Amino acid sequence: MQRVKIERVESDIHAIAQFGFNEADRGVYRQGFSEADMAARQWVRDRFEELGMAHRMDGAGNVIGRYGPAEGPDSPPCVIIGSHLDSVPAGGIFDGVLGVVAGLECVRVLKENGIVPAFPIEVIGTSEEEGRFGGMLGAQAMTGHVTLDWLDTARDEHGFMLKDAMKAAGLDSHDVLHAYRRPEDIRAFLEVHVEQGPVLDTEKTTIGIVEGISGVFKWNCRLIGKPDHAGAAPMNMRSDALMGMVDFAHEISRIIDEEGTDKSRITIGHVALKPGFPHTVPGEADFTIVGRDLDEEVMQRLSDACRRVLSSIARKHKLKFEYEEMSWLKPAYCDEGIRALMERKVQELGYSYRTMPSGAGHDVQFFCNHTRAGMFFVPSVNGVSHAPDEWTHWSDIERGCQLLLECVTELACGEDVAAGMAVSG
Amino acid sequence: MQRVKIERVESDIHAIAQFGFNEADRGVYRQGFSEADMAARQWVRDRFEELGMAHRMDGAGNVIGRYGPAEGPDSPPCVIIGSHLDSVPAGGIFDGVLGVVAGLECVRVLKENGIVPAFPIEVIGTSEEEGRFGGMLGAQAMTGHVTLDWLDTARDEHGFMLKDAMKAAGLDSHDVLHAYRRPEDIRAFLEVHVEQGPVLDTEKTTIGIVEGISGVFKWNCRLIGKPDHAGAAPMNMRSDALMGMVDFAHEISRIIDEEGTDKSRITIGHVALKPGFPHTVPGEADFTIVGRDLDEEVMQRLSDACRRVLSSIARKHKLKFEYEEMSWLKPAYCDEGIRALMERKVQELGYSYRTMPSGAGHDVQFFCNHTRAGMFFVPSVNGVSHAPDEWTHWSDIERGCQLLLECVTELACGEDVAAGMAVSG
Repeated sequence: MQRVKIERVESDIHAIAQFGFNEADRGVYRQGFSEADMAARQWVRDRFEELGMAHRMDGAGNVIGRYGPAEGPDSPPCVIIGSHLDSVPAGGIFDGVLGVVAGLECVRVLKENGIVPAFPIEVIGTSEEEGRFGGMLGAQAMTGHVTLDWLDTARDEHGFMLKDAMKAAGLDSHDVLHAYRRPEDIRAFLEVHVEQGPVLDTEKTTIGIVEGISGVFKWNCRLIGKPDHAGAAPMNMRSDALMGMVDFAHEISRIIDEEGTDKSRITIGHVALKPGFPHTVPGEADFTIVGRDLDEEVMQRLSDACRRVLSSIARKHKLKFEYEEMSWLKPAYCDEGIRALMERKVQELGYSYRTMPSGAGHDVQFFCNHTRAGMFFVPSVNGVSHAPDEWTHWSDIERGCQLLLECVTELACGEDVAAGMAVSG
Repeated sequence: MQRVKIERVESDIHAIAQFGFNEADRGVYRQGFSEADMAARQWVRDRFEELGMAHRMDGAGNVIGRYGPAEGPDSPPCVIIGSHLDSVPAGGIFDGVLGVVAGLECVRVLKENGIVPAFPIEVIGTSEEEGRFGGMLGAQAMTGHVTLDWLDTARDEHGFMLKDAMKAAGLDSHDVLHAYRRPEDIRAFLEVHVEQGPVLDTEKTTIGIVEGISGVFKWNCRLIGKPDHAGAAPMNMRSDALMGMVDFAHEISRIIDEEGTDKSRITIGHVALKPGFPHTVPGEADFTIVGRDLDEEVMQRLSDACRRVLSSIARKHKLKFEYEEMSWLKPAYCDEGIRALMERKVQELGYSYRTMPSGAGHDVQFFCNHTRAGMFFVPSVNGVSHAPDEWTHWSDIERGCQLLLECVTELACGEDVAAGMAVSG
């Protein structure tokens, strides 16, 4: 059996980690369309070039390398290995990057074994997955989920426009619509990713085959009260915007108990107070709410409850409540056939595995209703991700890459070649 | 009776408002030792010069204008009219400035009536009252409350050192210790200020004679948890630093009910989350606590309760709790004689008045145990202060200045002159 070489994968991951790496907190700052993000994309294109792959950047900023039959009207549909290259602020080195680097390694192994796939293999580093502008822009563009109106109005939490961020990166936001790929041109979409949760690490299991991906909604909320002198304003005469947010946060566990499931999540990750001065009662509290569940009806109940509770608290605290729904991504389920393939291959390889839902959103969810799509996880140590100390043991990375190689070989080269590889091992 | 001229006072207040004025939110940003703050100080010195007053800036950044007998070993003790020239971020135009401008107007009136006081009158614009580095630096320096060690280590909430801020303003922080004034050189200290609370405006009362000033403590707190992916980390496996802060904030009203009085205040005015990203569970929450009461024993009980509650919450949420006490200012009581003088004068003038405590800290509190000190308030419309829409009606400003003139005339020129002024009116 042909084997991936973990040294090459490790080297690639470390190389990409340099783009946006911050020495102070040892986190990666490679937010979508930042300079660091665009530099990482160029680095990946340089690797495509070295491997003799046809490559391009599409209108959404996705970088695409193609191995096998050239693109054209008569080309067979391609097998895509994709994940994202952008990061959250102060993120880890594996999140997203693993799924791209694993694809590079698969092509490398096939190429050095002289195997040219019948179906082209595309390795894709997708754009803006992490949510600076709502998330999964590259995947949404490829699967036809982006509208012109949204492109013209989308902005990040600081009010910076998507179109301006793309322009600064040398891209025209209207070209995002040219990134669309027809379902008949795609044979399958595969994503390998670190779990970013504690399940596999806790259970000492190597592979988590994903059944489905939670949907997610994101709100920007604002509570407006009255900024008062913190000494002179009696406690009972204040309109303290922070205390409104506090009362809401205090209700989150009750909202989930009453309206949600054990897969529900509601998170306040960002808070900004105005004026934000220690001696002034906060006159305004801006904060985000991110809610998730595997079931869209549950998502709806959670968001209804958030609105209801915030409105009620605003009345109680004499505050004005405003919110904007920045994004609403539906839950999605992986293809049964791809899941069965992954399960067969992981059993052949003899790795420990389980099936599981994904609490986090991923690019793959947009491909779920567009083509045959599948995803699997490798463990995150202590479940940590979106943080500088995100880690996955290299032995788990190696097994994930090997499983991906087995799956992509069967999908792109057919069972005969895949079986042949196994026999020669 | 000689009368103050409100047009001149109004003109001075508008002129000083320009230093640090922000067109966007119409707030004043004149934090201690900022460029705007130093420019306002120079503007006040220019007015001293116009009035023929001896003037200087002391080592703490206080600007001092003197009218009457020159400084020297045989000089009689001076009557100080003082308040601060710095502002909170996004503050109003009256806070502090009124007490300086009222002093200028008193000197103007005395001078144009040819009255030279037997005791010198000093008009002082104090420095860093608002708390960028703990607060009331100028007043503390004049009354001997500053230590060399504190000067070398004090820093603002962004970690910027006091000594660096002073250096940038052209001052040597060690010279703060040269600002000390001996009690025997001060005959009295008078401060007039906007109330910054709702009492006078609600009761339609013009003058609030201050009995005492609440003490205040300020903490910088930090709760440290674990930054996790907001989708993958189950709610019950998180160490969410924000939720720790939320639980504490929720307990504030109980803490005051159990340990405090109706004059107690506990405020969280500043919150910063790390990484502060909507899709990441907050790994760290930095926030300030400012507590106040008129009774130091109550302050102690409040701060003990805050520490106890935060420690308990930190254990419950699996967080690490750190705090630093940035300042502890004792309550202070005004001089009985000065209060009686103010009361007599306000009755003579026929203005409505009441006696009241001050929930906010003021420069005067450091002079309370140093010399004879007194303070009175004029109303703040809707009790608003530390905010761009802080307002006091000009008719109330005029009455405040007139009362100050009456008080300072008696203190600096003697009862005969004061009576003569009253007779000539």
